[in-house]
Amino acid sequence: MSAPPYPRRTTVSPFPVADCGGLHDGIVFPAAEFAARLAAVQQRMAAAGYATLIVSDPANLYYLTGYNAWSFYTPQGLIVPADGLPHLFARAMDAGGAHYTAVLPRENLHGYPEHLVQRPDVHPWEWIAARAREIGLLPPGELAGIELDGYFFSPRGYLALTATVPEIRLDDCHDLVNWVRLVKTPAEQTIMREAGRITRAVMERATQAVRAGRRQCDVVAEIQHTQARGVAGLGGDYPAIVPMLPTGQTAGTPHLTWSPAPLVAGEATTIELAGVRERYHVPLARTVSLGAPPRQLADCASAIADGLAAALAAIRPGADCAAPHAAFTAELHRHGFRKDSRIGYPIGIGYPPDWGERTASLRAEDGTPLAAGMCFHLILGMWMDGWGYETSESVLVTDDGCELLAELPQGLVINDDSH
Amino acid sequence: MSAPPYPRRTTVSPFPVADCGGLHDGIVFPAAEFAARLAAVQQRMAAAGYATLIVSDPANLYYLTGYNAWSFYTPQGLIVPADGLPHLFARAMDAGGAHYTAVLPRENLHGYPEHLVQRPDVHPWEWIAARAREIGLLPPGELAGIELDGYFFSPRGYLALTATVPEIRLDDCHDLVNWVRLVKTPAEQTIMREAGRITRAVMERATQAVRAGRRQCDVVAEIQHTQARGVAGLGGDYPAIVPMLPTGQTAGTPHLTWSPAPLVAGEATTIELAGVRERYHVPLARTVSLGAPPRQLADCASAIADGLAAALAAIRPGADCAAPHAAFTAELHRHGFRKDSRIGYPIGIGYPPDWGERTASLRAEDGTPLAAGMCFHLILGMWMDGWGYETSESVLVTDDGCELLAELPQGLVINDDSH
Repeated sequence: MSAPPYPRRTTVSPFPVADCGGLHDGIVFPAAEFAARLAAVQQRMAAAGYATLIVSDPANLYYLTGYNAWSFYTPQGLIVPADGLPHLFARAMDAGGAHYTAVLPRENLHGYPEHLVQRPDVHPWEWIAARAREIGLLPPGELAGIELDGYFFSPRGYLALTATVPEIRLDDCHDLVNWVRLVKTPAEQTIMREAGRITRAVMERATQAVRAGRRQCDVVAEIQHTQARGVAGLGGDYPAIVPMLPTGQTAGTPHLTWSPAPLVAGEATTIELAGVRERYHVPLARTVSLGAPPRQLADCASAIADGLAAALAAIRPGADCAAPHAAFTAELHRHGFRKDSRIGYPIGIGYPPDWGERTASLRAEDGTPLAAGMCFHLILGMWMDGWGYETSESVLVTDDGCELLAELPQGLVINDDSH
Repeated sequence: MSAPPYPRRTTVSPFPVADCGGLHDGIVFPAAEFAARLAAVQQRMAAAGYATLIVSDPANLYYLTGYNAWSFYTPQGLIVPADGLPHLFARAMDAGGAHYTAVLPRENLHGYPEHLVQRPDVHPWEWIAARAREIGLLPPGELAGIELDGYFFSPRGYLALTATVPEIRLDDCHDLVNWVRLVKTPAEQTIMREAGRITRAVMERATQAVRAGRRQCDVVAEIQHTQARGVAGLGGDYPAIVPMLPTGQTAGTPHLTWSPAPLVAGEATTIELAGVRERYHVPLARTVSLGAPPRQLADCASAIADGLAAALAAIRPGADCAAPHAAFTAELHRHGFRKDSRIGYPIGIGYPPDWGERTASLRAEDGTPLAAGMCFHLILGMWMDGWGYETSESVLVTDDGCELLAELPQGLVINDDSH
């Protein structure tokens, strides 16, 4: 068992790391990293006037504490006070093992009883709210920020919370933690580069696997095999989204998963996948044509190549999120194409159902300034009537431009169309 | 390309199947199946006094229409009127391709504009609610059932809906569609048996792959490879939950995913995974000991084996969900063990984050009567202090008992502990 390439947790306060299992090999962020993340969130909370912050997005739980398990199908939450360490609330069987991954002391882990799970008459958020109030996390009359549009916090959970602690004033925090995540720390940037190495290996295998007569599910088997194995010395983690493989006529729609149907000579297949390292994602898309592409596909690929080059050239600190979109759009229009949807979103930690961070978007309406350390997936999908083309790059914004996180030949991939 | 083993859609009303792509090979339910499912839901709606039903669980969308895409990370919903066909609402890029999978006429597919996606100031559910009211799906003053505790319908979506159509009276439908799904139709039972064949192949490969010195991620690579390939003639689909592999000390907690750390001789690994066929899941758990198990693990496995046999013997139409739990618990106590959590839940269609149906539970408090055609995952997890044991069976309730959906040797698997 070789030494992990990252520093293990050290004993920097405020996280009581002696209590942590540290049982995972691989990347474990140092405690100082978690302390800095928490401080950044608490600073934003202060600016918003929040006495407390109620977090449920699994990516935010992982970001702030390292907690990592497939437990988000039952209610769970992290409550962050204005000062001091957060408290984690989860189903008892999950809270009991949370110390294996989370940098929190045992007394900050709270498990709700099993009999509350999936019942029409009672709800775990009643228990969580009551317990949080009891330990002073929900001060009456104070403002509490809350994630109202994330995943895995249901309207019923919300109604249970407000009914149990009606004295708390709730305010939609609009993904406050996600906005902190937008700029990656140096340690995160290193992990993103590692994820990118996995991405490159996975996409290489994927494009080679697309052959006429092969079943879609067999191509995916090879993709997932490489995603999990990773590359030498870097084990892979699971992606927030399974490989997507719209092919032939269905390439005209973006989010179809695979079927057992075979790939057909003469048709094109779009592939969208990610390499993942310790929950950090670097997505990538390519399109493979089995045989010479029809004229419209070749023209589209050519237009997108020029648009992509223009967008990449427009990414640098100080420009805003609309700038690469404008550069891309101008090139696309010059070629006689148009695209209505955004061309990119921030990436990093991801859990199903999405590897996007849900904050800034690369689109005309978004004036968020770009800054070094941000990571974006520039995804250029053209979903046409009965055919489609997708290509993408994942980038890290640097001091004077951007760096590709998974460098591979760009443009349409053309494979032999023989069986 | 061999003929699919299931009937393709036929032209039985009310679904206008001529409009449907039917581009997927493999299993496509006949239109009569969808008509019967819709009728069953509308019957329950009538009993509840609902003029309409607002559905957002992707499994329910698939159940009622066949719609199947990884599009649930942005808001989407199906609105079911008291009579007639449902309407699907999704992001424009997804609604545009929904006819590839959904048995709905084009005029029942509604796409909201791209500029509503992931914005702090506007929300897709404002658009969906306004459009649904406009076409008469949300009659003022009438009662509308709504899924308030499913996945992928956020509190902000709920608040946007109620603010846009304040004249509608909403009622938590408590997973009405999921309750219809509880009893599988003959066509569904056949697919569940096929999924079980995949499960058996995947678990065989998984237990063989667990070897001392191998990295956890390499074991998962083999599992996922088999999950996607399936077995001869039956391609695999993606599971709602990734393979879970708590090992050694961390087997004391249930929902840890894998790491790049190697498996250790002398330690035990619990494996929980599913075989999946066209979104239908048959989960299975086994525990592998690398070398002779410690006494406590062997004793626990023996107690669980007796408990499992008793629970299986107690499953039959007419008994209730508490009966197998009581039979299991009596055996477990006789052996000096105890378990607080439920021992099973219904299975079938699944999307991340769960393959459970969230209705009945096999536990003391649940008096739901068992009926032929129900499918359950009997999952017997013992999460102890620093070690654990898990085993499970997926069963189909038959006319006079139950049938194992993935038959494999039961009990603790002991592999050689050499590298």
